[in-house]
Amino acid sequence: MPLIQIDLDRELFESLGDQLSAAVQKAQIDALDIQADDLFQVFTPHGPGELRFDPGYNGVDRQRLLLLRITMVHMYSVATKQRLYRSIVERFGEAGVRAEDILISVVENGYEDWYAGRL
Amino acid sequence: MPLIQIDLDRELFESLGDQLSAAVQKAQIDALDIQADDLFQVFTPHGPGELRFDPGYNGVDRQRLLLLRITMVHMYSVATKQRLYRSIVERFGEAGVRAEDILISVVENGYEDWYAGRL
Amino acid sequence: MPLIQIDLDRELFESLGDQLSAAVQKAQIDALDIQADDLFQVFTPHGPGELRFDPGYNGVDRQRLLLLRITMVHMYSVATKQRLYRSIVERFGEAGVRAEDILISVVENGYEDWYAGRL
Repeated sequence: MPLIQIDLDRELFESLGDQLSAAVQKAQIDALDIQADDLFQVFTPHGPGELRFDPGYNGVDRQRLLLLRITMVHMYSVATKQRLYRSIVERFGEAGVRAEDILISVVENGYEDWYAGRL
Repeated sequence: MPLIQIDLDRELFESLGDQLSAAVQKAQIDALDIQADDLFQVFTPHGPGELRFDPGYNGVDRQRLLLLRITMVHMYSVATKQRLYRSIVERFGEAGVRAEDILISVVENGYEDWYAGRL
Repeated sequence: MPLIQIDLDRELFESLGDQLSAAVQKAQIDALDIQADDLFQVFTPHGPGELRFDPGYNGVDRQRLLLLRITMVHMYSVATKQRLYRSIVERFGEAGVRAEDILISVVENGYEDWYAGRL
């Protein structure tokens, strides 16, 4: 039941929304071994000036920012998380999103912190 | 000082925003025993294609997605959280939102992680 | 690599977005000693009825709500966090935002919970 929230340029959402949705879901299936239909994604498109970043921080050539936030239960190892990041970056790359432009942030909670349609 | 963030269809926000706001506040008062005026809510309405979900994951008949995120201090028992979910679902049901369409995700922090208008 | 997310009235974003962006970055540099180019900010402007609050909760005279969410690695002391809040409030005040109108919420994670442009 990972929850995916993606903040991105409106233009990028309109041209690539479907591909990005499929890409992140495939990445989760690959890396976390979730069920194919365990899909909860919220896209928030942004206008000019809403996504702000430095174009060179930490030696990375950033051109625009795509923020991917993941809320998930605390149960995955560091290696699994890194496999997830790698998979997201690879699949987003296939959709035309540069690895350098991606920011991923994970926040963890517990099983008891979710309600998903039934008690 | 729980913070409520609700992502929902724009149409749903426009027709039911006031009722949903009152409903979640009543649910918090019932389940968490917060003060009636301890109210911090952020609604983010979404357009087509922004809220993505599977219509049948985990045997739930989902028709649209309403995401309710709660950030609150780590101090409530599992039973209290479940009472909160039940109360939200019941009161949203009175406003016409199906239990199956609701996704709730809680993230906890500490007292020191808040500033609410004065130091 | 703190991630800053700011939810605010659209009018406020349009008139003060640049100033608020600079203000929160300066506050982070002052209080957390981050690098000047360690900047990741997401502004989400809101329309009427989307930001809801009580105008007097906890004895604070609130007129509108500006929500500032910070996701950062668990590594700062309580004193450092309070210095950060104070610095944000002071610098936002210089931009014309009332201290009473600000809500700050911090959520922490670990180093392994970030991908920022390269593996």
